[in-house]
Amino acid sequence: MTTSGTARPIAILAGSGELPILLADRLAREGMPHRILGFRGFCERSVKARADAVIGLLDVRRLVGVLDEWQPAAITLAGGLQRPSAAALVSAFSALRDRDEIARLAARGDDNLLRGAIDLLQSRGFQLVGVRDLAPDLLAHAGPHGAHRPRPDDDLAIRTGFGLLDAMSRFDVGQAAVVSGERVIAVEGPEGTDRMLARARAIGAPRWFKPRLRGGVLVKGPKRGQDLRVDLPAIGPRTVANAARAGLAGIAVASGYTLVIDRAGTVAAADRLGLFLLGVDRSESAHV
Amino acid sequence: MTTSGTARPIAILAGSGELPILLADRLAREGMPHRILGFRGFCERSVKARADAVIGLLDVRRLVGVLDEWQPAAITLAGGLQRPSAAALVSAFSALRDRDEIARLAARGDDNLLRGAIDLLQSRGFQLVGVRDLAPDLLAHAGPHGAHRPRPDDDLAIRTGFGLLDAMSRFDVGQAAVVSGERVIAVEGPEGTDRMLARARAIGAPRWFKPRLRGGVLVKGPKRGQDLRVDLPAIGPRTVANAARAGLAGIAVASGYTLVIDRAGTVAAADRLGLFLLGVDRSESAHV
Repeated sequence: MTTSGTARPIAILAGSGELPILLADRLAREGMPHRILGFRGFCERSVKARADAVIGLLDVRRLVGVLDEWQPAAITLAGGLQRPSAAALVSAFSALRDRDEIARLAARGDDNLLRGAIDLLQSRGFQLVGVRDLAPDLLAHAGPHGAHRPRPDDDLAIRTGFGLLDAMSRFDVGQAAVVSGERVIAVEGPEGTDRMLARARAIGAPRWFKPRLRGGVLVKGPKRGQDLRVDLPAIGPRTVANAARAGLAGIAVASGYTLVIDRAGTVAAADRLGLFLLGVDRSESAHV
Repeated sequence: MTTSGTARPIAILAGSGELPILLADRLAREGMPHRILGFRGFCERSVKARADAVIGLLDVRRLVGVLDEWQPAAITLAGGLQRPSAAALVSAFSALRDRDEIARLAARGDDNLLRGAIDLLQSRGFQLVGVRDLAPDLLAHAGPHGAHRPRPDDDLAIRTGFGLLDAMSRFDVGQAAVVSGERVIAVEGPEGTDRMLARARAIGAPRWFKPRLRGGVLVKGPKRGQDLRVDLPAIGPRTVANAARAGLAGIAVASGYTLVIDRAGTVAAADRLGLFLLGVDRSESAHV
């Protein structure tokens, strides 16, 4: 679906999840012209139904052709492109660029892959903007979201978790961890937050101290130096449900830098399941 | 089995795995008197058959009674006590010490638990020594073990991996990671190395670059500041087999600080499966 007009549109390159639709709705409400380009195999059915074009992630010539036709004011990447597929994305560009350069990028990790993909799009004259610039109210704010509040024990876990994420941020590793007190239960790798939470659930607290050690926290935020125009960390109702299954007390995210997909649904789930949901200003929590 | 004598024995507190037997054999060869105290449910059958006493991990009064009777010159902890059970160990001491203090320890993570357990044993007058002091040749040496050598790509992964372990070392988190190039595939949590390797296997390299990205490395070493008398990182033939299944090119361990259980079998497995096995002097690799 397109909001037509003489103004050049925003091109939404749609991966998985609800974010592309949320973003399109937001732009529509503000009367901003936009077009949706869905990636086949990634974008949801609901996105596909509204997309102006659906192409394979590897069909670079068609991607460039569509964008050349649309002449977008800017491009935004919305939704997940699973990490192997981010590699695939760059791989596709190898037809246009030097193959060895691509292979070097691939060896350097996904952050670099995404950066490479962005560079390549930009080298073709397209301007990339982040969801963060287009719809800042989709991001977590600082402070509590919902009815529940962290307890003093949880504060220690939150500080420890953000401290760990900071310490790891120069490495190409996940954006989330599960922490209980000072104990790190799980660090997110390429498997993503949901699978990490399943692991945390399996590990759990030491049986003998279960009543006391419950109160683990999912901590999530972007890496320092990460390109915030792509791959913003995100949470949603499913994250809350999985955190509850893992026996966690709550979720702490970096405010201003973490997407809350379906905010009403996410907060309702947290309230119902008894989890706190806290936005933390990392400029304060950075140094623990 | 006991090497009797008038000299006070070394008491080997035996957890899981082959290390207690390896250590007992070593002490026997050197004519050092020793006694084995196996923890029921943790020590292997082969250890049980040779143990001078087998007690439940929670039977603190009997543990202290046996040790009081043996009057050991020193106590050494050998073999794994799964992390929840480390909590259980300390829990058991709660009969002797303040319960709230134990609970505080438990909230602070496993490193602190072990430290607490050691403090409690020492407060009862027992001296704790590490396997490292008793049998230094059970540790990895610096340089290659076996026939295969890392390639230049692997060197990057090794540096990245030890850099990550260093960055994380002030946190209570695992002692190992899987890295491919600069990309962190998995960070070990309480689930242990074998389960982390299973995860790395499931994640694998991006399909598109598989031929190029194979060459991930298991990196393992102790945390900085860790009490090296307990919980030394260890590898063995099973580690090699699991690393091979995960498609890794090799294993790098901190030399002098990592146990190689069944050295001949471990090296033979690495040679047969085509993996390099490298001891790295972390005093050199610490700063990347």
